[in-house]
Amino acid sequence: MDLARRTNGIDHILCPASVAVVGASRKLNSIGGSILSNLLQDGFTGRIYPINPTAEEVQGLKAYPSVTAVGESVDLAVIAVPVKAVEQVVDDCVRARVKGLVIITAGFAESSAEGRALERRILEKVRAAGIRMVGPNCMGVLNTDRKYRLNATFTPIYPPEGNIAILSQSGALGLTILDHVKALNLGISSFVSVGNKADVSGNDLLIYWASDPNTDVILLYLESFGNPRKFARIAPEVVRQKPVIAVKAGRSAAGSRAASSHSAAMASLDVAVGALFEQAGVIRTETLEDMFDLAALLATQPVPEGPCVGVVTNAGGPGILLADACEARGLSLPQLAPDTVDALRAFLPPHAGMANPIDLVGSDDPALIERAMTLVGNDPNIDAVVVIFIPPLLTTRPEDVAAGIGRGAAAIPRYKPVQGVFMSALSKPELLSTGERGRIPSYAFPENAAMALAAAYQYGQWRKRPVGRACTLDPVVTATIRQIIDAEVENATKPFWLPATDVGVILDTVGISYARSIEVAIDEVSSASEQVGFPVVLKAIAPGLVHKSDVGGVVLGLETPQEVRDAAIRMREQLAKIGIQLEKVLVQREVRNGIEMMIGLTTDPVFGPLLVCGMGGVHVELIKDVAFRLTPVHDRDAEEMIAQLKSAPLLRGYRGGPPGDRHALIQTILRISALAEAVPELLELDLNPVKVLPPGQGLVAVDARMRICPPGAVEARRTR
Amino acid sequence: MDLARRTNGIDHILCPASVAVVGASRKLNSIGGSILSNLLQDGFTGRIYPINPTAEEVQGLKAYPSVTAVGESVDLAVIAVPVKAVEQVVDDCVRARVKGLVIITAGFAESSAEGRALERRILEKVRAAGIRMVGPNCMGVLNTDRKYRLNATFTPIYPPEGNIAILSQSGALGLTILDHVKALNLGISSFVSVGNKADVSGNDLLIYWASDPNTDVILLYLESFGNPRKFARIAPEVVRQKPVIAVKAGRSAAGSRAASSHSAAMASLDVAVGALFEQAGVIRTETLEDMFDLAALLATQPVPEGPCVGVVTNAGGPGILLADACEARGLSLPQLAPDTVDALRAFLPPHAGMANPIDLVGSDDPALIERAMTLVGNDPNIDAVVVIFIPPLLTTRPEDVAAGIGRGAAAIPRYKPVQGVFMSALSKPELLSTGERGRIPSYAFPENAAMALAAAYQYGQWRKRPVGRACTLDPVVTATIRQIIDAEVENATKPFWLPATDVGVILDTVGISYARSIEVAIDEVSSASEQVGFPVVLKAIAPGLVHKSDVGGVVLGLETPQEVRDAAIRMREQLAKIGIQLEKVLVQREVRNGIEMMIGLTTDPVFGPLLVCGMGGVHVELIKDVAFRLTPVHDRDAEEMIAQLKSAPLLRGYRGGPPGDRHALIQTILRISALAEAVPELLELDLNPVKVLPPGQGLVAVDARMRICPPGAVEARRTR
Repeated sequence: MDLARRTNGIDHILCPASVAVVGASRKLNSIGGSILSNLLQDGFTGRIYPINPTAEEVQGLKAYPSVTAVGESVDLAVIAVPVKAVEQVVDDCVRARVKGLVIITAGFAESSAEGRALERRILEKVRAAGIRMVGPNCMGVLNTDRKYRLNATFTPIYPPEGNIAILSQSGALGLTILDHVKALNLGISSFVSVGNKADVSGNDLLIYWASDPNTDVILLYLESFGNPRKFARIAPEVVRQKPVIAVKAGRSAAGSRAASSHSAAMASLDVAVGALFEQAGVIRTETLEDMFDLAALLATQPVPEGPCVGVVTNAGGPGILLADACEARGLSLPQLAPDTVDALRAFLPPHAGMANPIDLVGSDDPALIERAMTLVGNDPNIDAVVVIFIPPLLTTRPEDVAAGIGRGAAAIPRYKPVQGVFMSALSKPELLSTGERGRIPSYAFPENAAMALAAAYQYGQWRKRPVGRACTLDPVVTATIRQIIDAEVENATKPFWLPATDVGVILDTVGISYARSIEVAIDEVSSASEQVGFPVVLKAIAPGLVHKSDVGGVVLGLETPQEVRDAAIRMREQLAKIGIQLEKVLVQREVRNGIEMMIGLTTDPVFGPLLVCGMGGVHVELIKDVAFRLTPVHDRDAEEMIAQLKSAPLLRGYRGGPPGDRHALIQTILRISALAEAVPELLELDLNPVKVLPPGQGLVAVDARMRICPPGAVEARRTR
Repeated sequence: MDLARRTNGIDHILCPASVAVVGASRKLNSIGGSILSNLLQDGFTGRIYPINPTAEEVQGLKAYPSVTAVGESVDLAVIAVPVKAVEQVVDDCVRARVKGLVIITAGFAESSAEGRALERRILEKVRAAGIRMVGPNCMGVLNTDRKYRLNATFTPIYPPEGNIAILSQSGALGLTILDHVKALNLGISSFVSVGNKADVSGNDLLIYWASDPNTDVILLYLESFGNPRKFARIAPEVVRQKPVIAVKAGRSAAGSRAASSHSAAMASLDVAVGALFEQAGVIRTETLEDMFDLAALLATQPVPEGPCVGVVTNAGGPGILLADACEARGLSLPQLAPDTVDALRAFLPPHAGMANPIDLVGSDDPALIERAMTLVGNDPNIDAVVVIFIPPLLTTRPEDVAAGIGRGAAAIPRYKPVQGVFMSALSKPELLSTGERGRIPSYAFPENAAMALAAAYQYGQWRKRPVGRACTLDPVVTATIRQIIDAEVENATKPFWLPATDVGVILDTVGISYARSIEVAIDEVSSASEQVGFPVVLKAIAPGLVHKSDVGGVVLGLETPQEVRDAAIRMREQLAKIGIQLEKVLVQREVRNGIEMMIGLTTDPVFGPLLVCGMGGVHVELIKDVAFRLTPVHDRDAEEMIAQLKSAPLLRGYRGGPPGDRHALIQTILRISALAEAVPELLELDLNPVKVLPPGQGLVAVDARMRICPPGAVEARRTR
C-alpha cells in the first residue's frame, strides 16, 4: 500500500489483505453465496473468511460463526445478512477491529424512517471506530489490480483489468456498466456501487482515484449529491489530473420522483447540477451510451490539443455525417496543408475527395488507407484523426483493413487521438487494437465518434485554462454590510425583501454602481427628483408588488419636477384600479444608454447559492439567455458565463451599437459572489437590468432587490 | 402486378420478370460478377441474362454479347460496364425495349463536366424511350418480395423480408443500413441506392412506396434535394399513410462541401430542410442510430395515441434515465390509476416503487414482470408501455424473462406500443419476438427507447391534425400588386429594394395594416406629421441604410410638428457625422402598444421562398426565436410556427401584459405566403416589428421592406 497516496481509508475496502463474507451461504444463488463464490472464482489474492453461524464449512472454506471468532485480522467485511441482523454484525466488526465494511443489505434510509434511524446509528458506530463503510443498499466493490483481484460483488461479470474507475449509485446499472465496458474492449481499475452513500461518498472516491496509479478515467453514475459544495471544491482538482465523466439521473420531474423513492435521494435542481459540473470541468454526457463512447476515447487516446479533425473515409455518406456532427459540436474540418494534398494526390484514385473528409471512394485497400491516415495524421493543420470504414463489399477481409488502420495509427504522432468508425452491425472493436499504438476506439456510427471527440476537446480546453481567482470583500466592507443585515434580521422570523435604501447602501459598499434613488411619499417626489437629477424614472413601491413594469408601476423619461409629480399621481390612480395601494415611490435617475444585462442569485436547498448572469429586461424569463454558476464564482467562471450567452455579441458592439464594459461586468459578478459568501442570509438577489456602459465607463444597476432569510427561519436554506 | 397502384414505372425496376446484367463477369469479385452471383444465390424468381461480349457462358448461364442479342423481352437491365461504354449499352437497351435500367457505373455528373453532359444525354434517351432509370453511380436495387427475390446489388447482404423500404443516396451507407436493419431483427421490403438520381428520384419512390402493400415504413438517407417543392407536395400525402424517417446529411459547411464533391449535390440551407420535413410530417432524426431505433419501433408497433408512458423496470437507475429522456422530449409518466396501483400492490414486493416507473427492485421473476406489464398496459392513463430489464444477476435465464415480457405484451391492447430495454451489451432483440404479439423492439439503453417513442408520438400528432388551408389572393388584389411590381421591374437589371410607398400600397392591398407613413424631404416633415397623426416616429431614408435604429436613424415619441422638425434636423446632422447623407425621412404614426413580433421571407436558390415568423425587435438575429416554413404556408403550419416560439407566451398575455391577436398574426402569415405565390419576384421581405394588438384589434406592421429580383437577373432565384 502506497502511504504517500491520499487513500482516505478507501484502500482498506479496495485493497484488503483479508475479507470476511458475513452471510456467506452454500447456496450460490443467494447474495452472500455468490459474493463468496466470486471472490474464490475470480482469484482474490488474500485470505477469505466465510461467516455463517450454522455451518462448519462453506464452498470448501472453513466457516466462522462471527467475525470476532476468526481470530485473525480482517481488513474488509462484506455484510449480506437480513437488515435486522446488520447492527449486530457491525458491532461484531468493531470489536474485531475490521478496517472496512461493505453493507450489501437494503432496507435502510431508502425505505423507511426506521431504516433511516438504523443507518444513522450504524454510521455513528463505524465513524467512532474509524472504519470506512460502503453502502448500505449496494452491489459491492471490485478491484482488478492483480495484487488483489477483488470481486466483492454479486455480479457474474469480472471485467478485464484496465484504467477506468467506476462509481455507480444504482447497483443494477453498475452491472450494466461493467457489462458494456467489457463489450467495448475496455478495462476497469476498480468499481464501487455506493448505494446510500452513508459514509463513503463520491467525494471520497474522487480523492482516492485522483492519485490511484491504476486509474486514468473516472466514470460516475449519480442520482443525488450529498455535499455538492464539497464536490465543487474537490472535483476541479481531480479533473486537472484525469477526466471525470458523469451521468446524472433525475433531471425531470418524473425522474426526480423516481430518484427520491429509489435511493433516498433528494431531488436537486438540474440547473445547479449543470453549473456544478461545468465549473468543476466534469464532463456530463446526455446519455449512458455517450458515457461509454467518451470513456472509450479517453481511456485509450490523448486529449486533442485543438479542434481540427482530419477524416479519412472509404465512403462519402458517413464522412458527411461525421463532418456535420463535428461542426455542430464545435470541432472543425479544415483544409489540409498543400503538401499533404499533393502527397495524397500522388497515390489516391483520381476521383478521391480531397476536401477533408479524404474520400477513398469505396477503396478497401489496407495499404491505401494506411498511407492516407499517416499523411492526414501528420498534417500540421490536424489535431485528431478519424478513419471511417464500411466493411468491404467484395474481397478484402476486415481483419486486413483493421491491421492497415492499426499501422496507419502507429505512424500518427502520439499526442493526436485516433478514432475508428467501423460501420458494421457486427463491429469488432478488438480488430482495431492490434497495432503498435494499442487500442483504438471503434464506433458503429460517425456521430458517436464526433460526440466523444468534441467532449474530449472541451475537456482539454477546460484543463488548459488558468486557475481562476475569486474576490473577497475587504473586512471593513463586510463589517458595514453585516451591520445592516444584522439589524434587519434581528426581529425577523421569516424571509423578507430588504428595504430599497438598504439595498442601495449595500451595493454602494461593495462597489457596484446603482442608479441613485430615493424612496419617498408621493408628495415628496418633486424635491426628490431634484436631488437625484434628471431625467428621472419613477417606480412604484407597494407590498407584494414585484414585477412593477407589468402593471404600469414604472414611468420613464420624466424631465421636470412637475412631470414627476403628475406621473406619480397618475400611477397611484392606475394601481388603485387594480387594487394596489401605492405607499411610496422610488425616484431614480434614469440611465438611458448601456447594454441591458442582468445578474442574480438564487439559493438551492442542497446546492446553496447559484449566481446567474444573462440578457436583461422584462423578457429575461421568457428568453432564458442566462448562465448559472455556484458561488464562489471566480474570474474564469465569470468570463465563461458571459461567453456562453447568446447575447454575448452585444458586449462586443453589435450592429453598430457601442460595446460594453466586459471587465466591469465580470467584476460585478465577482463582487456579488463575494457578497453571498459574506451574507449567508442572502436568499435571492436581482440586479435587473444592469446597464453595461462602454468600456472604461463601468455599469449601473438600475433595479435591485435582495431577499434575506433570517438564520432561524425554516424556509429552504443553503446547507454548507 | 397491381395496376391500380401508382407505380410510376418503378415496378419495372423492382418487380421485373427478367433481368439482364450488362458487364456480367466470371470474376465474383468484379461488380458485374457479384451482381450476377447475388441474383443467382438469393433466388431471383425470373429469367437472368448475363451480357458479356467475350464469353459464351458466365456463372453457369448462357451469356449474350448484347441486350438486343437476347431475343426475349428484358424488363430490367443492370449496367456495370466502364463509363465510356455506358451510352452504347443504353442505346442497345432502348432498341431491345428494356423497361427499366439500373446504372451502377460511376464517372457521371458527380465527377466532371463531361460526365454531366453524358448523364444528360443518357437521360434524354431513356426519357424519350419511356424507360425508368436508377442511378448512375449507385449500388443497385433489392426487393425481398418472395414473388421476385431480386438482389440486383453488389452487397453480400440479403436482408430478411419485411416492411421497411429504404432509399439511400450513398451506396456504401446503404450497405451499412441493410446490415444494421438485419442485425436489429427487422425486415426490408425493398431497397434502392439512388446514386445521382438522374431519373428516378426520392419523389418517385415515395409515390411508389405509398401504395406498396409490402411497405409500412420508409427510410430515406438524403444528401440533396432535386426538387424540394415537389417533395413538399408529395411527402405529406405519403406521410398520412405511413411514416417516413429521414437522415439528411450535409448540415454543416464541411458536410456540405463533402456533399458537393461526393455526389454532385448542391448544398441546401439546412433551415429550409428542417422546415420542409416539419411541414411534410417527415420525421428527421439527428443520427443514423436514431433512424434505426425509430424504424424498429414503427415497423413493429402502433403509433401511440397520447404522450403517457407507463414504465415497468427491475432496476431504479435506468427507470430514472428513461423518465428524464421522456420528459425532455415531450412525453410524460403520469401516476397510474388507483385500481392499477392497488392491483400491483397486491403482488409486488413491499419495497417496489409504485410511482411510475414501477420498480420491481431487482426482481427477475418472469411471472411478476408479465403481471406488472399487463396491469400497466391496461391502465386507462397509459398510452405506451416500456419494460426495462437488467439481465438477472443470479439464476433466471434471459430467455425466460423475455418469454414473460412477450406474454405481458400480448395482454396489452394492440393499439398501445410496447418497447423493451434489455440492458445488456449482448442484447438479443430476437428474444423479445417470441410472444403472440410478434416482434417487440429492444433497446440497449433507455434513452434510445424514449427518443423513438417521442418521435412516434409526434408523428401521430402530425397525422391527426386536420388538413391545412392556405390562402390565395383575390384576382383583383393580385392584378393591383402585379401592376406595381411589373412597373418597378421593367427597367431593373438586378435585385433592388422596393420604394417604401410601394411597400405600403402592397401591404394595404393584401390587407395587412401598416402604420401610416409618408416619405418626405426634411422641410416637409411638419405637415406630413399632421397628416399621419401624433405621436409620430421619424425614420431615416438613405441609400444603403438598412439597420436604421442602430445609427440613430429612428426617433420615437414626437408629439408636435415642431418636435418632428427639430428631430429631423438633428438626425440629418447625426447621420452626416458618420458619412450618411439623409435624403428623405419617413414620417410615421407611432404604435406604442402591441407585442413585438416579426414576419419575413427569404428565398433559397433550391428551396424557393421560406417564410419566417418570430419575436421581433432589434435583437431578432441574436435571439433567433424564429420558425421557418416553405410557402405555401397553410393555417396549421402558421399555428405550429407560432406555438414553437419561445416567445409564444407573450401572445397569451405574459406577466400581466395584454394577450395578442393570434388570429390576426396567422392571417398575416397566410397573406404573406399568398403574396409570395403571386409575386415570384419577391426575394426578401421583412415586417419587423409587427405590433400584435389585443385580440380583435389586429396587428400593425411598423417597419416593412421588400426586395425584388427582376425575372432576368442572375442572382439566386427560386426554382419551381
